[in-house]
Amino acid sequence: MSIYPIIMSQTKFMQRDSLSYPYEERGLQFGDGIYEVIRIYQGNYYLLEEHVDRLFRSLEAIKINLETSKEEITRLLNQLLERNDMKKDGKVYLQVSRGSAPRDHVFPEDVPPNLFAYVKELPRNLETIQNGVSTITQRDVRWENCYIKSLNLLPNVLAKQEAKEQGCYEAILHRDGLVTECSSSNVYLVKDGKIYTHTANNRILHGCVRMRVEKFAVDMKIPFLEEGFSVEDISMADELFLSSSTSEITPIIQSDNQQIGNGKPGPITRQLQEAYEKDALIRKLEV
Amino acid sequence: MSIYPIIMSQTKFMQRDSLSYPYEERGLQFGDGIYEVIRIYQGNYYLLEEHVDRLFRSLEAIKINLETSKEEITRLLNQLLERNDMKKDGKVYLQVSRGSAPRDHVFPEDVPPNLFAYVKELPRNLETIQNGVSTITQRDVRWENCYIKSLNLLPNVLAKQEAKEQGCYEAILHRDGLVTECSSSNVYLVKDGKIYTHTANNRILHGCVRMRVEKFAVDMKIPFLEEGFSVEDISMADELFLSSSTSEITPIIQSDNQQIGNGKPGPITRQLQEAYEKDALIRKLEV
Repeated sequence: MSIYPIIMSQTKFMQRDSLSYPYEERGLQFGDGIYEVIRIYQGNYYLLEEHVDRLFRSLEAIKINLETSKEEITRLLNQLLERNDMKKDGKVYLQVSRGSAPRDHVFPEDVPPNLFAYVKELPRNLETIQNGVSTITQRDVRWENCYIKSLNLLPNVLAKQEAKEQGCYEAILHRDGLVTECSSSNVYLVKDGKIYTHTANNRILHGCVRMRVEKFAVDMKIPFLEEGFSVEDISMADELFLSSSTSEITPIIQSDNQQIGNGKPGPITRQLQEAYEKDALIRKLEV
Repeated sequence: MSIYPIIMSQTKFMQRDSLSYPYEERGLQFGDGIYEVIRIYQGNYYLLEEHVDRLFRSLEAIKINLETSKEEITRLLNQLLERNDMKKDGKVYLQVSRGSAPRDHVFPEDVPPNLFAYVKELPRNLETIQNGVSTITQRDVRWENCYIKSLNLLPNVLAKQEAKEQGCYEAILHRDGLVTECSSSNVYLVKDGKIYTHTANNRILHGCVRMRVEKFAVDMKIPFLEEGFSVEDISMADELFLSSSTSEITPIIQSDNQQIGNGKPGPITRQLQEAYEKDALIRKLEV
């Protein structure tokens, strides 16, 4: 799926081929920046406010001073869809780096951050959402501040690649046996009617869909426990699932070649998927 | 100091203003790449072979398949200096990313890595080398594979910035009290005539100058112990110093506002600096 023709650079719109960056860009040389991926259904953003809030939390965490306000970013992101006459399912990728400057670890002075955003078409992955996916488990070797949605994604890239090479969809990461999250999604275990997941501290990304999963669970009176779970717990799980803006709520039916539960998406996962579809105003899955 | 006019892109040479990268570049979006900074004295590389070896170790570690051989990279790097008629003190920055491709964590197929290199003038920082510098200590929050010289440098950037804001030259990083290295240099403690530093495992970058420091110490029959040292040990140190390709061997005379030793560069640090100058064939410091 290619990028829509109009992209955003700083607070302007331009043709997608006219944007490029110098080799002395802090995103490129240090990964010194942050990003968001925002889901679009039928031309409408899902959880836009949550994503923009998180964008600003990440900016604050790494001390990038973006002069553009939340309201202005929101307005620009809406304009990006309008200018492309975007009416389909898709996603926006938005990135802010500390800017272009001669290479030096310390922050450059009087250099504006580099902001860009583009839209892509992205149909729902009905096959994986309906049937579930397989995962591997792997040690979480990332830095300590995974709550920052930063461009330092090399460990995530390597984990996801390893999953793919083993014929799997995702890698479940763990620190000393305690499951944190996946390489690009949050992960949850269901046991005896309760949902377990890692607490939203500095070790995981505070997923926007994760926040909804918690809300859906509370609404449905399903206990949502941020106590975490271990790699060993996985083999005894009734259900396992992951969530992200692009994967929505995806059942995990196998991990490290072991079947999860009865090997099919479980009832609580299904209930949460239904709640997601209702919340995102999208058509119900035909299971 | 600006970049010399001729830079290298892939295996070609071009004018510095003609190179730019698309926004879908894996260095820019994931920090999915590695780099080297190589010292130049009077137009000659110092430790070139060591840097090229490490470049290939980093590439292997993150599974980037560069078709260009070590010999070819070496030849190109030498040509880069020749084409710029570079005869001064300086440094080359060289970066290899996994290439330009639509954003996806998993490796793109059939995409060539992006390689570029440029030369800058960089006089020796005689002031800091002679008089020493101040440091702060800070928790090491980086990922587990710091031996890979990757573009994921956000924690290093934040640590160095914090040091600067406290009026210091570097941040000494520690994990649970055990000193690993600095944000962009290795660090050593001298006590009772012995040099202590963190073992060259996955927690630190295996500095090219660090390898020389070890060799100099062995040559001078000074015990070089890779046992590490703690933050508490710093206050009792006789000497403290750091090393890197741009900082050479720089004495640390103060850390967290506490004086180190007698507050002046110590005799073992001086001996190592002399050995460095002899090894790099540069003029002796006039202390």
